Amino acid sequence: MKYLKVLFFLTVILVPITVFGQDAISDVESKIAAVQTNADYVWTLVAAFLVFFMQAGFAMVEAGLTRCKNTVNILMKNLMDFSVGSIAFWAIGFGLMFGVTNGYFGTDGFFFSDFSKDGDNWLFAFWMFQVVFAATAATIVSGAMAERTKFVGYLIYSAIVSAFIYPIFGSWAWGSLFHGGGWLEGLGFIDFAGSSVVHSVGGWAALAGAMVLGPRIGKYGPDGKPRAIPGHNITLAALGTFILWFGWFGFNPGSTTAANTDTALIAVNTNLAAAAGSIAAMFTAWIIFKKPEATMTFNGALAGLVAITAPCANVSPTSAVILGLVAGVLVVLSVMFFDKVAKIDDPVGAISVHGVCGAWGTLAAGLFDINGFSWSVVGVQALGVLTCFAWAFTTAYILFKIIDKTIGLRVSKEEELDGLDFGEHGLEAYPEFEKVG
Amino acid sequence: MKYLKVLFFLTVILVPITVFGQDAISDVESKIAAVQTNADYVWTLVAAFLVFFMQAGFAMVEAGLTRCKNTVNILMKNLMDFSVGSIAFWAIGFGLMFGVTNGYFGTDGFFFSDFSKDGDNWLFAFWMFQVVFAATAATIVSGAMAERTKFVGYLIYSAIVSAFIYPIFGSWAWGSLFHGGGWLEGLGFIDFAGSSVVHSVGGWAALAGAMVLGPRIGKYGPDGKPRAIPGHNITLAALGTFILWFGWFGFNPGSTTAANTDTALIAVNTNLAAAAGSIAAMFTAWIIFKKPEATMTFNGALAGLVAITAPCANVSPTSAVILGLVAGVLVVLSVMFFDKVAKIDDPVGAISVHGVCGAWGTLAAGLFDINGFSWSVVGVQALGVLTCFAWAFTTAYILFKIIDKTIGLRVSKEEELDGLDFGEHGLEAYPEFEKVG
Amino acid sequence: MKYLKVLFFLTVILVPITVFGQDAISDVESKIAAVQTNADYVWTLVAAFLVFFMQAGFAMVEAGLTRCKNTVNILMKNLMDFSVGSIAFWAIGFGLMFGVTNGYFGTDGFFFSDFSKDGDNWLFAFWMFQVVFAATAATIVSGAMAERTKFVGYLIYSAIVSAFIYPIFGSWAWGSLFHGGGWLEGLGFIDFAGSSVVHSVGGWAALAGAMVLGPRIGKYGPDGKPRAIPGHNITLAALGTFILWFGWFGFNPGSTTAANTDTALIAVNTNLAAAAGSIAAMFTAWIIFKKPEATMTFNGALAGLVAITAPCANVSPTSAVILGLVAGVLVVLSVMFFDKVAKIDDPVGAISVHGVCGAWGTLAAGLFDINGFSWSVVGVQALGVLTCFAWAFTTAYILFKIIDKTIGLRVSKEEELDGLDFGEHGLEAYPEFEKVG
Repeated sequence: MKYLKVLFFLTVILVPITVFGQDAISDVESKIAAVQTNADYVWTLVAAFLVFFMQAGFAMVEAGLTRCKNTVNILMKNLMDFSVGSIAFWAIGFGLMFGVTNGYFGTDGFFFSDFSKDGDNWLFAFWMFQVVFAATAATIVSGAMAERTKFVGYLIYSAIVSAFIYPIFGSWAWGSLFHGGGWLEGLGFIDFAGSSVVHSVGGWAALAGAMVLGPRIGKYGPDGKPRAIPGHNITLAALGTFILWFGWFGFNPGSTTAANTDTALIAVNTNLAAAAGSIAAMFTAWIIFKKPEATMTFNGALAGLVAITAPCANVSPTSAVILGLVAGVLVVLSVMFFDKVAKIDDPVGAISVHGVCGAWGTLAAGLFDINGFSWSVVGVQALGVLTCFAWAFTTAYILFKIIDKTIGLRVSKEEELDGLDFGEHGLEAYPEFEKVG
Repeated sequence: MKYLKVLFFLTVILVPITVFGQDAISDVESKIAAVQTNADYVWTLVAAFLVFFMQAGFAMVEAGLTRCKNTVNILMKNLMDFSVGSIAFWAIGFGLMFGVTNGYFGTDGFFFSDFSKDGDNWLFAFWMFQVVFAATAATIVSGAMAERTKFVGYLIYSAIVSAFIYPIFGSWAWGSLFHGGGWLEGLGFIDFAGSSVVHSVGGWAALAGAMVLGPRIGKYGPDGKPRAIPGHNITLAALGTFILWFGWFGFNPGSTTAANTDTALIAVNTNLAAAAGSIAAMFTAWIIFKKPEATMTFNGALAGLVAITAPCANVSPTSAVILGLVAGVLVVLSVMFFDKVAKIDDPVGAISVHGVCGAWGTLAAGLFDINGFSWSVVGVQALGVLTCFAWAFTTAYILFKIIDKTIGLRVSKEEELDGLDFGEHGLEAYPEFEKVG
Repeated sequence: MKYLKVLFFLTVILVPITVFGQDAISDVESKIAAVQTNADYVWTLVAAFLVFFMQAGFAMVEAGLTRCKNTVNILMKNLMDFSVGSIAFWAIGFGLMFGVTNGYFGTDGFFFSDFSKDGDNWLFAFWMFQVVFAATAATIVSGAMAERTKFVGYLIYSAIVSAFIYPIFGSWAWGSLFHGGGWLEGLGFIDFAGSSVVHSVGGWAALAGAMVLGPRIGKYGPDGKPRAIPGHNITLAALGTFILWFGWFGFNPGSTTAANTDTALIAVNTNLAAAAGSIAAMFTAWIIFKKPEATMTFNGALAGLVAITAPCANVSPTSAVILGLVAGVLVVLSVMFFDKVAKIDDPVGAISVHGVCGAWGTLAAGLFDINGFSWSVVGVQALGVLTCFAWAFTTAYILFKIIDKTIGLRVSKEEELDGLDFGEHGLEAYPEFEKVG
């Protein structure tokens, strides 16, 4: 009886202490989680900013590798890709890609309408990271269509790729990263940072655009042989390559969208694949052309970066080197194939860098999987590659055909010969410098 | 009695346990706070680095939009703005802006003298973030005064704006962020990241400088009509625009000076306003000039960025789009007004971008306030706008007049015609390229 | 007896509670440590990315300060420095620098072989930070050897400096940062971020290369007097300087390789020294050449940055200003010495900026030590400076001599006069622009 009283007495004292202790622990744990959340936000945002800066890289590469009479035009297209893309992805694209899915695409969250009600700031951090990806897919196309595309036609294309073409494929592979969920990711499709979702989508749309447009005047002689049309400023192309490599450190490691220790291997793989790609492309060009050609080398670095984008989180550094080397060889052969065999005029090599090497990287995520090789994984990767091509090429081809038949996709012959800068924008890029010829 | 003994006994055991638990909890909480502090430091520093990089953006925009004979000069002014500004802000400016205030300005902390004694590293992180803001205000002026200002006069101006003009207005609006406190913020003035504090101060000082200097030789014909003097390198202007947009992600989200979840909305608003600004300026220019003019479009992006700087943390994304659209229209009209009506020669549009759109953004922080519209808030914003103009324009005007009457503000006619690069620096920017004419 | 029972009773209840509490606390503490670790990773990686971007800065400075006929070549050398260096540092360099040391250098961890088995991601984060340092040392050399070095010879050099010359000295000074440990750091040698380890190693290797190569054709007249060979694009040089300054905020503050509050003072010191360096160099040039010469001013900023690299964490901001001012004067005098007295042709001033100012900064880490001045500290610093010179100059000199005697280090006279771009790479940098003469 006395013990019962003591027990009662103890209970009265101890239960609150214990509960207090558990409350305190649980309070502390939520404070720790809040600090981690803060770190996740700033990491995701910083990574997004780096990816944004890739727009400057694309602009410099594309301007550098084309002629000076079309420089203002290509710069404007790059700036508008991002500006129009930002608005389009806010209004439509994000909802289609990450909204609650109907099985084909997301159906809510347009204009931040549904998501923002709950006041969850993560929507904004996640959108910021995703919008720069959407704009990357769109901007890839401008290079392949350079020097002959009407500005107004390009604006329409750019809005539609950011609003529809990119997000719908994206919803199949990445929808579950937010509210959605897609059939490709349901099959186990691996595309960590977007070799297919971003780069191949852009690359295959670029292929469609270049096919609908046809080659630039003078690109193929009467004998059907391609002529080199050198870019006007290799320094810009090199600067752009460095900026893209820099920005890719946001693209791949940032795709964790969380501040964690996985980011380190991803960064290392990204860097090694890029280095291997540039070396392999340089030696491939050296063998074929007898000189270590610079623009092929730059494209080799980009090819390595595109290829490592899907597998950056699930392969070893040694595999990253190998798949980067393959990408570097592949991009040179692919550029030559499109130039000489397919006779598709791609002034900057965007189809080869982003389309072909994006496909290669997506397959490589299966072939070099650190968790072990399995044909079923490789099969799903191949399915993803084919689906990506079918979707992006077909929709973009139809879109460009419609634009071509309505408002027109290509500038007049006169404007093309004079340069698009004066015809489209009334401005020269370098008015004070004497041009050759 | 027995219970008392038990109670005594329990107390002897339980109190230490409880206290131990509370100590442990409190120890743990301070460890959590330390991790958060570390995150705050690295976020604030990374943001500061991004804002620093805006100096490269200003240099590229200003160089690109002026003539090649004055390129070295404008680059040197940009580098010196930051170098001289860093030393001036360390020696004087920071203390005036953030020291313990006398009601008009801060009075201690010069040369880190008072602050550093307590060994608080936050001073250094905060200073690093603030110095890049001070230098931004100073560097805005160089564009409006380009192609005709004596280098030595410019150095003096640059030091004085970083040491006095910028920090004193800053102390009124932002002093309480550190040790100070100012009358404008006391009234509830909203300028989260500096539409007024940084951009309008720079823009109105630029206006004063351009007025004291007068237009460049050849800018206005005998009939008084303005002539276009095209910039020498539109690619540089585009690169600079991208760099500025990139750096602005440090400018606005970094102004939390804390790693927290508020950063995400700020980043999204910043991006949407910039995108809307560039689109609006492009279409405005398209309507007025019949072409989507590139430099107006670039300025439209910057106008959107300047305008969202004050309200980035207290408006919705939809409001950010709207106020960015307004800024994009406004900057084109304002550039035309200063060029054609006021006949004030501003080679890069700095007065319109930073002065006018800074004022618009500051008003917009009241008009679009997510916490609800109130005339009293808008009134305080208007008071801030007027105060900023009165302070920055007047002090800068007096300063430029004094420089003009003493050591001289403008180069000789011969030097202006030959270009400032040779006259001021003995160096050509592009000695190997043939120039037109 | 009754109390014993109560005591027993209490023990049964209280011990579990207490143990539970201690377990919970310890669990919580490991969760806090995990968040801090995450912050350390993302800080270290972001800093590494900024340092990577310095490659773009070096490329722009070196391209801008040389002639346009050698632009493609210098860009390719910069890209290959990083690509080849990444692979070489992964395969060999990192193991030599940070592997378990045999007293002379590290002996394991090649190809990530030994380190990666334990699955410790920190290896990857740390490697990512270190590889960008290794590549910086290598890329410094390309500027001093510009406009006359065979590409294939340069590739071999670049691989060997990243694989052997840089890491072995590095193991003496920094080995203990990972698994190793070196004799210089054992003596108390202070080189926080690498004034000696990175910059002087690169600078003295550059000196060896420039000596083995000899001056460019036309650099010294028949009278032995130096002639100025102006760079082809000062805008690029300015852009590169801004990029380097930006990247240095990763170089120095990032060398904490931990997200902590020490980063702030390091950032402030870095910035103040750079600002002081550019101001001091400008005024020194102004006095000597009667004009505020731009390229000297850019080199002054870089000189301040190199000089603050060793002492950035152990000097006061005032000391940072002073040592930056000294560096700014020193770099101008040193450039003149090598140009006019030693007659060693260094097109971009790399020997002076990185070699000489690296030595100065290393000494300054002793002279301005915030913990108090001591001759023994200064003596160790001087020993480090001398060791660095002896190691880097000697090994690089031997290496360049071997390359020169075997495959050849210098291009033919014809190729040098025609430009290396066509001869080595079959490509012009600016094919559409008319060149002078």
